[in-house]
Amino acid sequence: MQLGVCYYPEQWPRSMWANDAKRMVELGISHVRIAEFAWSRMEPRAHEYDWTWLDEAVSTLAGAGLKIVLGTPTASPPRWLIDAYPDILPLRADGTRWNFGSRRHYDVSSERYREECVRIVTAMARRYGKHPSVIAWQTDNELGCHDTIPSYSTAALTRFRTWLARRYETIDALNRAWGNVFWSMEYPSFDTIGLPNLTPTDANPIHLLDFRRFMSDEVASFHREQADVLREFAPGADVLHNFMGFFTTFDHYRFVENGAVDVAAWDSYPLARTEVIALPEEDKARYARTGHPDVSAFDHDRYRAIGAGRFWIMEQEAGPVNWAPWNPVPAPGMVRLWAYEAFAHGAELVSYFRWRQCPYAQEQMHSGLNLPDNQLSQGGLEVARAAQEIAASSVLSGLPPASRAKVALVFDYETQWMFEIQRHGKTFDYQTLAFDYYQALREMSLDVDIVSRNADFSQYSLVVVPSLAVMSDDLVRAIENSSAQWVFGPRSGSRTPEFSIPLTLPPGLLQSALPVRVLEAESLRPTLTPATSLHGVEGNAIHWREHLQPGAGTEVLARFDDGWPAVVSHGRVRYAGAWFDHALHRALLDDAARAAGLAIGTLPEGLRVRRRGDVTFAFNFGPDVVAAPAPANARFVLGTRELRTADLCAWLEA
Amino acid sequence: MQLGVCYYPEQWPRSMWANDAKRMVELGISHVRIAEFAWSRMEPRAHEYDWTWLDEAVSTLAGAGLKIVLGTPTASPPRWLIDAYPDILPLRADGTRWNFGSRRHYDVSSERYREECVRIVTAMARRYGKHPSVIAWQTDNELGCHDTIPSYSTAALTRFRTWLARRYETIDALNRAWGNVFWSMEYPSFDTIGLPNLTPTDANPIHLLDFRRFMSDEVASFHREQADVLREFAPGADVLHNFMGFFTTFDHYRFVENGAVDVAAWDSYPLARTEVIALPEEDKARYARTGHPDVSAFDHDRYRAIGAGRFWIMEQEAGPVNWAPWNPVPAPGMVRLWAYEAFAHGAELVSYFRWRQCPYAQEQMHSGLNLPDNQLSQGGLEVARAAQEIAASSVLSGLPPASRAKVALVFDYETQWMFEIQRHGKTFDYQTLAFDYYQALREMSLDVDIVSRNADFSQYSLVVVPSLAVMSDDLVRAIENSSAQWVFGPRSGSRTPEFSIPLTLPPGLLQSALPVRVLEAESLRPTLTPATSLHGVEGNAIHWREHLQPGAGTEVLARFDDGWPAVVSHGRVRYAGAWFDHALHRALLDDAARAAGLAIGTLPEGLRVRRRGDVTFAFNFGPDVVAAPAPANARFVLGTRELRTADLCAWLEA
Amino acid sequence: MQLGVCYYPEQWPRSMWANDAKRMVELGISHVRIAEFAWSRMEPRAHEYDWTWLDEAVSTLAGAGLKIVLGTPTASPPRWLIDAYPDILPLRADGTRWNFGSRRHYDVSSERYREECVRIVTAMARRYGKHPSVIAWQTDNELGCHDTIPSYSTAALTRFRTWLARRYETIDALNRAWGNVFWSMEYPSFDTIGLPNLTPTDANPIHLLDFRRFMSDEVASFHREQADVLREFAPGADVLHNFMGFFTTFDHYRFVENGAVDVAAWDSYPLARTEVIALPEEDKARYARTGHPDVSAFDHDRYRAIGAGRFWIMEQEAGPVNWAPWNPVPAPGMVRLWAYEAFAHGAELVSYFRWRQCPYAQEQMHSGLNLPDNQLSQGGLEVARAAQEIAASSVLSGLPPASRAKVALVFDYETQWMFEIQRHGKTFDYQTLAFDYYQALREMSLDVDIVSRNADFSQYSLVVVPSLAVMSDDLVRAIENSSAQWVFGPRSGSRTPEFSIPLTLPPGLLQSALPVRVLEAESLRPTLTPATSLHGVEGNAIHWREHLQPGAGTEVLARFDDGWPAVVSHGRVRYAGAWFDHALHRALLDDAARAAGLAIGTLPEGLRVRRRGDVTFAFNFGPDVVAAPAPANARFVLGTRELRTADLCAWLEA
Repeated sequence: MQLGVCYYPEQWPRSMWANDAKRMVELGISHVRIAEFAWSRMEPRAHEYDWTWLDEAVSTLAGAGLKIVLGTPTASPPRWLIDAYPDILPLRADGTRWNFGSRRHYDVSSERYREECVRIVTAMARRYGKHPSVIAWQTDNELGCHDTIPSYSTAALTRFRTWLARRYETIDALNRAWGNVFWSMEYPSFDTIGLPNLTPTDANPIHLLDFRRFMSDEVASFHREQADVLREFAPGADVLHNFMGFFTTFDHYRFVENGAVDVAAWDSYPLARTEVIALPEEDKARYARTGHPDVSAFDHDRYRAIGAGRFWIMEQEAGPVNWAPWNPVPAPGMVRLWAYEAFAHGAELVSYFRWRQCPYAQEQMHSGLNLPDNQLSQGGLEVARAAQEIAASSVLSGLPPASRAKVALVFDYETQWMFEIQRHGKTFDYQTLAFDYYQALREMSLDVDIVSRNADFSQYSLVVVPSLAVMSDDLVRAIENSSAQWVFGPRSGSRTPEFSIPLTLPPGLLQSALPVRVLEAESLRPTLTPATSLHGVEGNAIHWREHLQPGAGTEVLARFDDGWPAVVSHGRVRYAGAWFDHALHRALLDDAARAAGLAIGTLPEGLRVRRRGDVTFAFNFGPDVVAAPAPANARFVLGTRELRTADLCAWLEA
Repeated sequence: MQLGVCYYPEQWPRSMWANDAKRMVELGISHVRIAEFAWSRMEPRAHEYDWTWLDEAVSTLAGAGLKIVLGTPTASPPRWLIDAYPDILPLRADGTRWNFGSRRHYDVSSERYREECVRIVTAMARRYGKHPSVIAWQTDNELGCHDTIPSYSTAALTRFRTWLARRYETIDALNRAWGNVFWSMEYPSFDTIGLPNLTPTDANPIHLLDFRRFMSDEVASFHREQADVLREFAPGADVLHNFMGFFTTFDHYRFVENGAVDVAAWDSYPLARTEVIALPEEDKARYARTGHPDVSAFDHDRYRAIGAGRFWIMEQEAGPVNWAPWNPVPAPGMVRLWAYEAFAHGAELVSYFRWRQCPYAQEQMHSGLNLPDNQLSQGGLEVARAAQEIAASSVLSGLPPASRAKVALVFDYETQWMFEIQRHGKTFDYQTLAFDYYQALREMSLDVDIVSRNADFSQYSLVVVPSLAVMSDDLVRAIENSSAQWVFGPRSGSRTPEFSIPLTLPPGLLQSALPVRVLEAESLRPTLTPATSLHGVEGNAIHWREHLQPGAGTEVLARFDDGWPAVVSHGRVRYAGAWFDHALHRALLDDAARAAGLAIGTLPEGLRVRRRGDVTFAFNFGPDVVAAPAPANARFVLGTRELRTADLCAWLEA
Repeated sequence: MQLGVCYYPEQWPRSMWANDAKRMVELGISHVRIAEFAWSRMEPRAHEYDWTWLDEAVSTLAGAGLKIVLGTPTASPPRWLIDAYPDILPLRADGTRWNFGSRRHYDVSSERYREECVRIVTAMARRYGKHPSVIAWQTDNELGCHDTIPSYSTAALTRFRTWLARRYETIDALNRAWGNVFWSMEYPSFDTIGLPNLTPTDANPIHLLDFRRFMSDEVASFHREQADVLREFAPGADVLHNFMGFFTTFDHYRFVENGAVDVAAWDSYPLARTEVIALPEEDKARYARTGHPDVSAFDHDRYRAIGAGRFWIMEQEAGPVNWAPWNPVPAPGMVRLWAYEAFAHGAELVSYFRWRQCPYAQEQMHSGLNLPDNQLSQGGLEVARAAQEIAASSVLSGLPPASRAKVALVFDYETQWMFEIQRHGKTFDYQTLAFDYYQALREMSLDVDIVSRNADFSQYSLVVVPSLAVMSDDLVRAIENSSAQWVFGPRSGSRTPEFSIPLTLPPGLLQSALPVRVLEAESLRPTLTPATSLHGVEGNAIHWREHLQPGAGTEVLARFDDGWPAVVSHGRVRYAGAWFDHALHRALLDDAARAAGLAIGTLPEGLRVRRRGDVTFAFNFGPDVVAAPAPANARFVLGTRELRTADLCAWLEA
């Protein structure tokens, strides 16, 4: 449980640096991230490096006792580099080229740019790789942000063709796998394949999917090229990248394969995230100043798995930000709360963005721990309080890593891509469905691990799969070999890896565990809401409904008004043939959790509970005063049972 | 009353073909359409034809006793052709070029592409033109779909200039006709005229209109070039094109001139159409699983005229489709009902799309008569029932062609274009207005012919003209020479063929039949709804209202609150000076129909009636059980008087 | 108080001209504007001028006794000029080039086009500059209309770099001022700076602001080049440009500097303007046929200042127009009312657009004083009445110029640009805020001058600054040196001229007059509405709220529920830390106006009052009959106390 901050010494007079470092330490901060975006200062002209300022910044911060995370500056190629190689600028789907003048103006597939990145990272790593205070390196910044991925450049096209040739080996194999006989889409050779943009109507879904898979691999290899340099020249340091919340443009599980990162770091902005994701309007209104209670937790639990247990908040919201449609000030207390929430979910470090609000340029309305006049902001004051509390509590400062939960929720990036490519109904969004299942579990006071479809499921009591487009034999075996209760949502097993419908009909391979055929599926306009009842809870399908034909031995747990099965089960496996409203999702998971023998709580609205080690934390995101569900003999290590809005407590069970 | 199906043998193993053919015949299917989109299989490489598979498919289907409709494959030029001639790809209004990778990626004005189309069609027609089972040919597929027309290519520009030079002869004549003195838009010569895209503000409306007229002619000549080949090499076969519903990009009356088609075929998708057209939200909700009761009938009645009495459903929805914002499963019974509805309106053939759902590529979520696992779908089962019913009834199987109705509704494509170019109010849409008039007539239990402004009106009792931008002397004479009641809607006669306001003011030439001047016209925001009362019905103008100054002998049938006339008449001619709400439209047409001596019924909501020969059909699109308006002594040949949702009946009057 | 009309003789047969002139004079019209847009007739081919028609038109109109305003034709470069120099066509932000075919298809930065404009204006001015009836010249037409400014051309880029080099002198100075160290945006030299379009995320706000400043200067210099020619060859005539309503693309105060115009003319279309601006829907509904009561007045009061007291309506709506989403007919009386409204606010001339509705081309649905068949329209009849009334009243025809009001409202174009660049909340719009303040003042029966931040404030009793992004030392001194009450709205003083946050925090320099620090600011989604109470009025903040920390001596006039100050004051200066709802704005200004000793009236909804000389005018824009607030002994020179909708009266106090 350590606190950090993001700092840009190049943006401030050198005369301020020493005092800044001193004040950071006094505030209780142990880690500081610097240098990302500073390419034009490290290398003001081609091959003319200037390390003097960075040497001084590193030594000043290290001298104050701070641990340093160095960011590579590749998210912002400098002007002289773009002038030398204009093809570095990425192309959009509509054929226009992005300009220099902000950030992320590079084509991830540009081989020239990749060479330049390796060059600057090598130079940095040679200089600072063995500095004892430089304990970690971050590559680039928020890969994929601002829809800069995919790029539709010639470089991307060339590499995509190579990627396809490697995957399919022959053009006949590709034409067969893609079903290109349809609409005469057959390609004579790999070098006649184009990118799937600007087609008069939908491109072939597998064309779109393979392009997304390719681009995901491009992002991973872009990082990997830098990571390889860092491994060589900074052998002891942690390598990481700062991922984003609710972000699915690339497959994070594949990104981190083969030790590409040591820790999964991500950037947490709960208020803005709550504003921009597809939540019901009443939730956005209710949680406008606290953030939705599950919006950060969802990614804490996701990135903990991605980091194989190790995760950091690289950037934590410290006050109002600048990039949502509306940007309110957080409720007093939230900046402190968010830190504890991350720790409760297992974070090693919570690093705030940023030390001081920058009065100029694009992020001038993005707050920091200090106002532009160098007074502590409201957020700064709350961080000071949290640091003091942690320092004062041996229980808090000595918490062990988060242990495995009893409930696993499978989140799958390819499923997101496939159902974006083929929403079928315009209100169908897989991540939103997964988030609704996750909320239901969290409202039941359950701790959840969010894991990949390839996880080890043997130790879980309940495995929830909100949907999984492609079922695999491995997963079927995992079901058989586990003793868990399994819940599958709609569209599970509905596609092959080549984006076809299984010839046995959906849910395809899952049929060996749960015999059922999906005869037809329908997307539902908001006025079409087939009614059903599950375990005494009345409710409706929304967005999506399937016509299920149960096979031998399959039980129908609920039926719709019109007679079609709503939920079926076979042994430990349940299948929901619709996207249900939230109350029905709760009923479905409640039933499965009880069957799994899990202890279920009922939390007041807006309250959430999370356990780490022996400590249970409770967080109040709602507007009302509520009581934390601590046992009578709980020993409070933080706060008390009564929780006002934006407050938290933590206890040991006696 | 024959049933057909669309089939793509190239998408399935040859081992399935014989069984497919056998099962089609067993199901009661007599016609099968094949080969459209299969260019890459007919000609895998330039000038290397491969007919073996198509020979086998034709002989297999013919051998089973099926009649074959062959589609030309020109809606999907293959990759090698695009690589050879990239200019075939069309340009959008914003200057970007569409890519290969779906379908319809060709510029209809490309002379190179037209040559290639003639070449492949000639090769097909030479091979199969005299095959006794190939009884019809379809050109291309859904011309104009996916907004691929107009194209803004150099080829289009060059041909547009030629078209203009032919129309106007001299540049001075064009400048005068277009009024190019306005804003100094005068052109020195035909070769300085551009396309009307990307202008800082509106282009000259006549510039836009002439471009639409030109593009409509381009579509027609593109078809005609193929039709000419087919006439030569397949002399006995019907030539057709599969048109679309609610589609007005080209003038279908001009398209079919001079025998360009033998039968008007169209593709009917009632649920998706109901979702995407401009209907009130409550109608979309009410009819989400049945389709709006008039949405298919409107096009049945339109294409029957376009086909001079002969029309087919080339593609009929067989279950949920994939291309609307939401795609529900039809109510059980609708797949059967839609077939009878088409027959009742005079269709010779109803051909379902498609035989079997294709598990891969773009249309994998588009259902067929069989599921991907080759079991009959719900739609397939309903088709089987309909086929059995027809076979069992000599009355049904022996129905004569549809006879002329007593009511004509004039639909005019140029009016659609002119009021799209100049909506004046953003909620003004001519086709929506025409559809509202059509609904009112159908709710009154009237059979309707939808005809062009050049039709023979001498036999009609009532002629309804929802609007007609340009009045002609011929039509004025037709009014004089008929004994019908005539109803004209707003904006009738408001423009000259050169898109100017008549100097006598609107309704221009109509003034000789009905003396009235439109002093001013206004478009109405939703909150502006001038009130009036017509024949005891209270209601409002919406969208549009005119200030009418009646001339000598013109009677005012209704006035608005503020004194302006709402409806005027002179002899047998009525003029509505506004877009009225639906109740007022009903009142207006009810009055005219009574004056015309027509028998008017009052149907329950959602019920529709249609007569063919001696048989009256009744269709229930609504959710409630209703009674069909059959006389007491009716002899039912299908069903009974009581109609559940999605059910129908048919009777002979004893 | 004179009446004019816009006339396009080239659009009509010469045989009509003399009669048109005669009828204008008979109607009471004294001024006629001609020749704008007629380049293709003045110069049909390069360097071949044809003045014969214009000579005849001028002599016909002058012969009838009309005063002529000549428009330069540069808003519509002819086709032959575009063919000769295609680079004249402007580029949009997305890189596409506008086409010929409407108007305003030129790049304001094109030096070639500027030369051509000087050439044609010189030719015109040499020919007509000394004609005694040509009493004024208008340059171009509605500069910036149709989003043609800014242009993103190479010419614009080249000139922008020169403009920047002049402003910043060295690239280091620019990099420092812009804060380009942020995200490595540093430029090696001026010729590497690009335009701020097509960046992956926001461009640097100062980059965007300087580009807007540059483009504003481009517009001004484009006009100035023509004005210089006119000064030389038409020495006695007034030079003007016809500005637009609610239009902020360029800085009108800078435009008119150094005598660039003699009179500020603007084009007033109240109904369409009411439809398109950001008004509450209920206001749009209520005032759909009258226009919002303040929508024209706001610009009358703005352009009166811009014209240093002299302003004209160059184009006044004469009936329904063609360019809003919906275009209703004005309520009977409004065409007359709008003329008097303009006169009451100080207009010298009200010139209607246009003499006769043109039956062809783009504006065929734009009404005029005559219908296309040459009968007077409803608007024409109302103008005749107004002309007769004025001629019959020596009081009305002898009114003096408008005198200075007691209330000043500061409107600032750069503030508009800065808050468009950085809305922070998507519902924040500065002009809308300024208009809400203006409405509140007008509802209180106050006459208002709208002035620039550099105005002379010494004579005002109340100065209202809805917001002013950049405070200056000059303005602080003006506060100190005045005796007025001052009201500042939110975000005042929140930025430096280089688009940075002041290091003392907002309101920056204003702190010397009113000690307060804005710690944080938040934009408010519609559901977040902090409550407060001011002078007994309960209400809410909307859109925007600040956290104010009052300094020594600063009084808190109102607090929000959560304790933050809502309004603070120090001496004669008030600061509102939020965008309030309208009732609170009224309460705020009411309090300040009382402190300023102003007489405040309470007007019925929809009624407005304006004084000119000794005459008070009252205008009823609302639907109800209301009583004008004339004293008992008022002497009415127009109308009576009872005002129906769309009516007005005027009186002298006895």
